[in-house]
Amino acid sequence: MQRNIRLLISFDGTNYKGWQRQSSVVTIQGTIEEKLTIICGEKIIIHGAGRTDAGVHALGMVANFHTNASHGLTAFARGLNSLLPADIRVLKAEDVTEEFHSRFWATGKKYRYDFYTGKTIPPTERLYAAHVPATFDPGLIQSCLDILIGTHDFASFTASGGKATSPESRRGTVRTISKASCQPIANKRNSFSLIFIGDGFLRHMVRNLTGTLWLAGQGRITPAGFQNILAEKNREAAGATAPACGLFLEQVYYENRL
Amino acid sequence: MQRNIRLLISFDGTNYKGWQRQSSVVTIQGTIEEKLTIICGEKIIIHGAGRTDAGVHALGMVANFHTNASHGLTAFARGLNSLLPADIRVLKAEDVTEEFHSRFWATGKKYRYDFYTGKTIPPTERLYAAHVPATFDPGLIQSCLDILIGTHDFASFTASGGKATSPESRRGTVRTISKASCQPIANKRNSFSLIFIGDGFLRHMVRNLTGTLWLAGQGRITPAGFQNILAEKNREAAGATAPACGLFLEQVYYENRL
Repeated sequence: MQRNIRLLISFDGTNYKGWQRQSSVVTIQGTIEEKLTIICGEKIIIHGAGRTDAGVHALGMVANFHTNASHGLTAFARGLNSLLPADIRVLKAEDVTEEFHSRFWATGKKYRYDFYTGKTIPPTERLYAAHVPATFDPGLIQSCLDILIGTHDFASFTASGGKATSPESRRGTVRTISKASCQPIANKRNSFSLIFIGDGFLRHMVRNLTGTLWLAGQGRITPAGFQNILAEKNREAAGATAPACGLFLEQVYYENRL
Repeated sequence: MQRNIRLLISFDGTNYKGWQRQSSVVTIQGTIEEKLTIICGEKIIIHGAGRTDAGVHALGMVANFHTNASHGLTAFARGLNSLLPADIRVLKAEDVTEEFHSRFWATGKKYRYDFYTGKTIPPTERLYAAHVPATFDPGLIQSCLDILIGTHDFASFTASGGKATSPESRRGTVRTISKASCQPIANKRNSFSLIFIGDGFLRHMVRNLTGTLWLAGQGRITPAGFQNILAEKNREAAGATAPACGLFLEQVYYENRL
């Protein structure tokens, strides 16, 4: 009987060209599929909850795959980890209902973006936070984040030239943000986390929001100006795309039907 | 006129065979000396506040060097950083009195040791924390740490076979610990930091203490047993050496004369 297996995955994206399988470059999806194909003895395709860009990290990516293999679940957790490089780890493997699909069933995601504002970034942070040496007012950033809460057309913050693909295309560039906050990181000087929870995120959306919020945090645009950028629905109105290394996919949410 | 320049340095030790210059392997000291020699146009030797082992990190290492070069101090901060790889950063450069010596003048050091106790370590933590999958009672660890406060002979916790070198040899294996604590890391599940502040640390001392404290935290030795290990002054009485990657040299202290 064919099984549908769901994996909870954490990875350090530093050395990968993103999630999605591509020929001739090393990706997270491609690496996991290669090892699962060895374990299962049949060609395995995994479906991720989303695509992360090159250099983006994940603490709780979800993916599922179908297989005829009858191995115990430890083969897909501890066994898979023994074949994977140390920068990709399976945290959990479980059998799920055959209809489950990591992307279509996802009801939301949580992203975190970390940045360091001091003059020189500590080398041990350099791969896991963006370096933005400037003075920020977290209150100004929060005023802009408050504007994002609710349902909006995020066309100003999506990758320029990016084509919406199904099933995203059904809802175009409209997304709902339920939480958006800016917090200093405990015990780390000059370090801040932006947290975004929403029903979905467009390509580059978190990084484009972040790049624009940095301008707001320095007083270079006002909260009213930020609101106008959102209203313009034009990528050119917003700030630059923040670097990939500060971004973490923290969690993918599903309805209780799982 | 010859100048004495003091550097505050942070580094990610992952890719280095420790601080101390060695022929044919890449070290922190060797790398910095090579770049300073280019900048100054004369052979430069730097004196570090201590030697860190291969894989150990530093947030606030101190080193000094003498030079006849008359460059402005930015040459030894921003200029040096432009030549150094991204995993070594100079945070500050300053002219100091000619008698200053980073090691001989140091009055104390602060070390931090981070470890992760969950089943699978998140890949983005793997280079900066030890993975010790077990259940720990931080209260038991703290009871042992309390025993360390004060002046003791730490022979049980120094590198086996290590020879004391001057000026350490003057005080043998006796050191004074002024602070030792175990704290959960804020916002990181299953993560703890050990903090040690003392007037000096023997080779492998923090890592040997940590390996032994892990046994105490799991109830495998009692605080009384820990006290006995300290009293035995015998390396074989203590636990294993904890891995290098969890260790950070956080700060080097000097009297107010600097």
